[in-house]
Amino acid sequence: IINAEKSEFNEDQAACGKLCIRRYNFGAEEDQEWLTLCAEEFLTGHYWALFDGHGGPAAAILAANTLHSCLRRQLEAVVEGIVATRPPMHLSGHCVCLSDPQFVEEKGIKTEDLVIGALESAFQECDEVIGRELEASCQVGGCTALVAVSLQGKLYVANAGDSRALLVRRDETRPLSSEFTPETERQRIQQLAFVYPELLAGEFTRLEFPRRLKGDDLGQKVLFRDHHMNGWSYKRVEKSDLKYPLIHGQGRQARLLGTLAVSRGLGDHQLRVLDTNIQLKPFLLSVPQVTVLDMDQLELQEDDVVIMATDGLWDVLSNEQVARLVWSFLPGNRDDPHRFSELAQMLIRSTQGKEDGSTGEGQVSYDDVSVFVIPLHSQVQGGSGP
Amino acid sequence: IINAEKSEFNEDQAACGKLCIRRYNFGAEEDQEWLTLCAEEFLTGHYWALFDGHGGPAAAILAANTLHSCLRRQLEAVVEGIVATRPPMHLSGHCVCLSDPQFVEEKGIKTEDLVIGALESAFQECDEVIGRELEASCQVGGCTALVAVSLQGKLYVANAGDSRALLVRRDETRPLSSEFTPETERQRIQQLAFVYPELLAGEFTRLEFPRRLKGDDLGQKVLFRDHHMNGWSYKRVEKSDLKYPLIHGQGRQARLLGTLAVSRGLGDHQLRVLDTNIQLKPFLLSVPQVTVLDMDQLELQEDDVVIMATDGLWDVLSNEQVARLVWSFLPGNRDDPHRFSELAQMLIRSTQGKEDGSTGEGQVSYDDVSVFVIPLHSQVQGGSGP
Repeated sequence: IINAEKSEFNEDQAACGKLCIRRYNFGAEEDQEWLTLCAEEFLTGHYWALFDGHGGPAAAILAANTLHSCLRRQLEAVVEGIVATRPPMHLSGHCVCLSDPQFVEEKGIKTEDLVIGALESAFQECDEVIGRELEASCQVGGCTALVAVSLQGKLYVANAGDSRALLVRRDETRPLSSEFTPETERQRIQQLAFVYPELLAGEFTRLEFPRRLKGDDLGQKVLFRDHHMNGWSYKRVEKSDLKYPLIHGQGRQARLLGTLAVSRGLGDHQLRVLDTNIQLKPFLLSVPQVTVLDMDQLELQEDDVVIMATDGLWDVLSNEQVARLVWSFLPGNRDDPHRFSELAQMLIRSTQGKEDGSTGEGQVSYDDVSVFVIPLHSQVQGGSGP
Repeated sequence: IINAEKSEFNEDQAACGKLCIRRYNFGAEEDQEWLTLCAEEFLTGHYWALFDGHGGPAAAILAANTLHSCLRRQLEAVVEGIVATRPPMHLSGHCVCLSDPQFVEEKGIKTEDLVIGALESAFQECDEVIGRELEASCQVGGCTALVAVSLQGKLYVANAGDSRALLVRRDETRPLSSEFTPETERQRIQQLAFVYPELLAGEFTRLEFPRRLKGDDLGQKVLFRDHHMNGWSYKRVEKSDLKYPLIHGQGRQARLLGTLAVSRGLGDHQLRVLDTNIQLKPFLLSVPQVTVLDMDQLELQEDDVVIMATDGLWDVLSNEQVARLVWSFLPGNRDDPHRFSELAQMLIRSTQGKEDGSTGEGQVSYDDVSVFVIPLHSQVQGGSGP
């Protein structure tokens, strides 16, 4: 469900579908100089993805068209490990060392770690594809990426950016992702500027102050934070402290190098600070943080859902408000086969000031808003596997 | 309470005492070309510290003699901010910009952030002192550091290393620190080796494998993790993967560069991998992680304590076992004015296989063991402040 408001082209993009992971069976007679290649559908899952673009829709469109293929490829590369009870030390299954299974067990490596690894690699591969494609077509832009994958009774949520996935059950509301912004990744970003000061080209200061400093502050002791600090201290202001801050602004207004509101995502290979040659990309990560929800361990009810949405929703509705809207809508509409889609539409409407429902706050979002409602019960009921 | 077993010299060291933070009043008549300097005792707190040395006791002894002075100095440098309701943007209290208090409030900067900042700076200052002193006296060694400071109704726990502080209350057991080891800081350490590969001098591999690889693994696809990965994937083994791993071993046996079991602490400026010129120090952080316990917000009972101990205790007793020992000992000994010291001694004894009490497991520690028992009730009762 997508609702464009802000820009001429919709910068939010989405994708969802069945994820078919094939296994390639190679003929055994390798010494006969030919291989029998036979791909069979081996493992199926479901895939949902939201991409919130900036600097145009190009990166988000590419990501929506590409990321699932990258993920399928990465999963297929390790599928033998994923279907094992525990991943083997060697993908071939051959045991070089008798105690190999014990080493893997002692490290606590589980099959879900291979899916996490595949998601991490897929995001990076997709980022490279977007970089090449945008350059080849003389386009620019970047996007956040929030992906949910249901596979073998588990829901994997991979997030790079400021979208959010929220688990809403009858008696529980739990975020399945956290946001990556210049504020939440301050230490990583400051650390990078410490190691590679040339990235700031002498135009920015790495240090954090409560506000941008000015001439009157010179010589005063003011509050500051550097990369190694979680606490605050005071430092005497020098001239170099008056430069524009690497991270500036508060909350939703916080910007990296005065330019970008997110610190992870795909694309932005060409992005530079206005009127300078200073690149943003070195400060951005494409690798997501992955959360795993073991659906088999939950006694799932019919109304248990995961809400995935771009920041347009979360800017105006809190987790609790969204949960209340879910609870007020789903139980009364059990007979409606489209109730989950309708809930998604209702959540969108409630950001547009048209819904005078249970939130009663009437905050309006001027950003693109996208929402997926994933019913968990059917994921476990439907099943998936070899 | 210290009990040396392992080495000729006790490598565990401890310090505790009253922390007296002075304020320096400068005479107001600065234009008269003289200053009245008058130090008054201004704010008092309490300080406990445990240092677990390695490579000899020298660093731990220096830390026990030095860190509290560093901390007092750092706190005195910001004391005007600490006693304010909210730290002022300018330490002088002068307002350069009318909305300065608002900027500080929007950033959420609180007085406790200044204490955290002072602890972070004190650890770093102490690390520098130790580096200079050890070099000057031709000594070597390093140590972990776990510090608790009670100040203005809050308990600050700063940790760099693998000691632990545990809050034990009647109905709650909560760790107030987490351990910093090559395993818990794997990504930070691998990341550094990625940025500065010369630190490994071609002798180590940055990658993590379930075990050290050998010739038979060449060409096989084996499980691995790199710095950007939380999950696992497979890679085809090349010759360079057969090098000794940057982080090797499991659990308590895990070592950084085959040498060190901790990844944060003080000292080790001279430490090198045996028979090489490869330095450990670039991979070590002296900055602690600080946890704040707001004692004023807890309804503290007489038996509520914080247990601080070096890894010698936690290697053989779990948090739950320690909590059970606390609960079995304290309530029956309310009349004994020395019961907290006796509890500490009892905890030590229960690591020596001499206590056949409630743990009933009889695990024996061959490491030095040090324990502080901090009664929280008296911290709040006693009070402290200007």
